[in-house]
Amino acid sequence: MKKLVFLRHGESLYNLENRFTGWTDVDLTDDGYTEARKAGAVLKKHGFIFDVAHTSVLKRAIRTLWIALHEMDLVWIPVYKSWRLNERHYGGLQGLDKDEVTEQFGEEQVHEWRRSADVRPPAISEEGHRGNLSDPKYATVGKENMPLSESLLDTEKRALVYWHEVIVPSIRDNKRVIISAHGNTLRALVKFLDHIPDDGVVSLNIPNGIPLVYELDDDLNPIRHYYLDDEGEVPHDRIPRHMDMEDRENWDWMG
Amino acid sequence: MKKLVFLRHGESLYNLENRFTGWTDVDLTDDGYTEARKAGAVLKKHGFIFDVAHTSVLKRAIRTLWIALHEMDLVWIPVYKSWRLNERHYGGLQGLDKDEVTEQFGEEQVHEWRRSADVRPPAISEEGHRGNLSDPKYATVGKENMPLSESLLDTEKRALVYWHEVIVPSIRDNKRVIISAHGNTLRALVKFLDHIPDDGVVSLNIPNGIPLVYELDDDLNPIRHYYLDDEGEVPHDRIPRHMDMEDRENWDWMG
Repeated sequence: MKKLVFLRHGESLYNLENRFTGWTDVDLTDDGYTEARKAGAVLKKHGFIFDVAHTSVLKRAIRTLWIALHEMDLVWIPVYKSWRLNERHYGGLQGLDKDEVTEQFGEEQVHEWRRSADVRPPAISEEGHRGNLSDPKYATVGKENMPLSESLLDTEKRALVYWHEVIVPSIRDNKRVIISAHGNTLRALVKFLDHIPDDGVVSLNIPNGIPLVYELDDDLNPIRHYYLDDEGEVPHDRIPRHMDMEDRENWDWMG
Repeated sequence: MKKLVFLRHGESLYNLENRFTGWTDVDLTDDGYTEARKAGAVLKKHGFIFDVAHTSVLKRAIRTLWIALHEMDLVWIPVYKSWRLNERHYGGLQGLDKDEVTEQFGEEQVHEWRRSADVRPPAISEEGHRGNLSDPKYATVGKENMPLSESLLDTEKRALVYWHEVIVPSIRDNKRVIISAHGNTLRALVKFLDHIPDDGVVSLNIPNGIPLVYELDDDLNPIRHYYLDDEGEVPHDRIPRHMDMEDRENWDWMG
């Protein structure tokens, strides 16, 4: 039996300010730092050890991983970073807050973005796009593949390339893997593992900073999964009650 | 012209306590954390950007790098970790403090260790050796290569393998490289670059947390080098005056 751990980054500045984040490279808040430490502590407490870690090229995910690894005394393990694990690209919504988006685009449009897996928000500004194209962290993306905006399915597609090409071989090689990433890339991986249909994934919200453990059989089929907190294993459908879910359910997809 | 930056980790717990460190995996002190932040800030201020980083598998070097990279907004770059960049293995001296060592082995023996490039301290205890052999971070060392203790030349030899096999190709590929490592591994690389003889290297002390910049020509021959601090470029022979050198000169080689 193989164990795989997903970790969504701790609270970021834009989470706190209720802004669409996407590829905007905002840092953790102090609370996010604490969440990352707690995630590391709880993993350590429950005897988790990792041989390799994967994360995005965004600092909120990288630092969450680093802080957790430090807590687990595992800073020496290899850490691989890829833009394919980045949060969904929110195009022109990036940087806008909840109220601005509702005001600018209307409740109905927001509802459609939230409920549809295949709808892209408006494209990023030309300036923003040029910024991404000239950013060395995206040099490997290539001009023709640089997103202007992504639907949930776009994000899923590019994240699964990394899953199949990099993560799967590493798990098959009996490496114990932790993936520190973002709401929508973790959604994409969970959707794939659990065969969740397109219209089911939009209601799947993975909380910040709580390790999500998947147990897989030798063919990498999920046996079971659970969250890990101070009390130990928590069934995945109970976690939301720990959170202020009314707001989360509406805005968790903002990235 | 290529630039290469060496960074010796910030103050560690054992530096503070005047203990031989070697492969003992002690963490940074608060001052060490601050030194790492300052190193990142000064590199950023002087426009340094890196494409790739190399470090050891010891947390004081890894964390120094991470903290500096965060300061420089470069946490996303690839970071490679290798035991070959570890501090010199101090065998049975590891964990002992200055007074214990002098008392146990005598001034003359200490002087010989300090002044000789090819003398190994006493071997590590059997228990310590078994600990290293079973430590997953040393799985790639191999039982037959696991040191019981190292002379300065032993350290140099294994560090230069990494230099030639990994770092040189990366510099030739025009990558801007930062190496966060330890007193004796950085000594070894500087010795190689500057053709310092065996009896010259023992007096070469690289301070903690002050970036050391090497400018290299296309054949990787050094053109010049300098330290970088708040005031800008500092000739490498002036830095020691910033420090409490009387103690440093005697004990800097402890790792």
